[in-house]
Amino acid sequence: MEREGILVVISGFAGVGKGTIVKGLIAGYDNYALSVSMTTRQPREGEVEGQSYFFVTKEEFEKKIEENGLIEHACYVGNYYGTPRAYVEDMLAKGKDVILEIEIQGARNIKKQYPDAVLIFVCPPSATELKNRLVGRGTETPDVVEKRMRRAVEESEGIFEYDYIVVNDEVDKAIAVTHNIIETMHSAPKRNRAFVTSIQNELEDIAKGE
Amino acid sequence: MEREGILVVISGFAGVGKGTIVKGLIAGYDNYALSVSMTTRQPREGEVEGQSYFFVTKEEFEKKIEENGLIEHACYVGNYYGTPRAYVEDMLAKGKDVILEIEIQGARNIKKQYPDAVLIFVCPPSATELKNRLVGRGTETPDVVEKRMRRAVEESEGIFEYDYIVVNDEVDKAIAVTHNIIETMHSAPKRNRAFVTSIQNELEDIAKGE
Repeated sequence: MEREGILVVISGFAGVGKGTIVKGLIAGYDNYALSVSMTTRQPREGEVEGQSYFFVTKEEFEKKIEENGLIEHACYVGNYYGTPRAYVEDMLAKGKDVILEIEIQGARNIKKQYPDAVLIFVCPPSATELKNRLVGRGTETPDVVEKRMRRAVEESEGIFEYDYIVVNDEVDKAIAVTHNIIETMHSAPKRNRAFVTSIQNELEDIAKGE
Repeated sequence: MEREGILVVISGFAGVGKGTIVKGLIAGYDNYALSVSMTTRQPREGEVEGQSYFFVTKEEFEKKIEENGLIEHACYVGNYYGTPRAYVEDMLAKGKDVILEIEIQGARNIKKQYPDAVLIFVCPPSATELKNRLVGRGTETPDVVEKRMRRAVEESEGIFEYDYIVVNDEVDKAIAVTHNIIETMHSAPKRNRAFVTSIQNELEDIAKGE
């Protein structure tokens, strides 16, 4: 069976480890392609152009919107974030499962345009565990931790809009669970029309031939 | 997380090996309970009361219908077939995933009453392979093989009403795929309301406390 590519949205609270899960999927299986977002915000320490984000000016971003070159875009804290269309559609056409690591506003926009996209939300085992991870990083000031926890409250209100949740307790298990969810999506009859139709036709031929 | 039980319908053409997959699920994992159907048809050679079916009279079956003791029932070739309610509801309440090995008419009835039930259709790798398996059994007359193939044509028209298909090429793989589908269903947020709500509440408490 030749497989159709699936659009996979992965969201989750800051510090929940969704980036590690995404890296694990890309490294562990050959069916994934990772979409890189475009943004007008400034690069942070250690971020790499074309890997972390495509960093562009506001004018460049707005031109991209006008050209219909983004499949979704949203604005957070005065900065644009969007998903370039060409890479996503190219990879889907090649049968790759394309991963978008985006936030809920983007996830909603994707679901509207691609109702067959699968939306996955990564949860911590508990909220306390999430806070401990953020504090434990040692790189965030108490002020930033507080902001992220407040943002997590807002984000958590959208969890029921997602198709599946993955609890990131042990990361290897979370990667396997995420992969299984996506594999399961490939088993829907609507994603196997050619195969099902060939079985139907072949059965008819055999029944007629007898 | 305490899990809610899921109602799992498994259908497939005669000879496709769905019984072997169901046995593999029951033997290989502890989350499954197998529902035994009730029927008015005569037991066949080797069939065991209470394991293959509950064999009852037409009067007993109709009394069961009147008492609302069946969650679905259908009639094939003049015989009743139905799913006793008590066992299914009892096992679901205990958190078991209850497997019903039933045909499409029953599957449709189940989906109407239990929209969250998952419907799985087991396919052969090809129609030719299905015919070879039926012929290869050596237990069916050419006449019976022909009848089953004609019935398969009818059944194949309903495949798109199922949520997922499983191709039974290698049986161990088919068992694992079926299990993964059911595990994925457990990851839906609606099946984890208590967990998601506790995360939401805990996040709010932490955010307020800071």
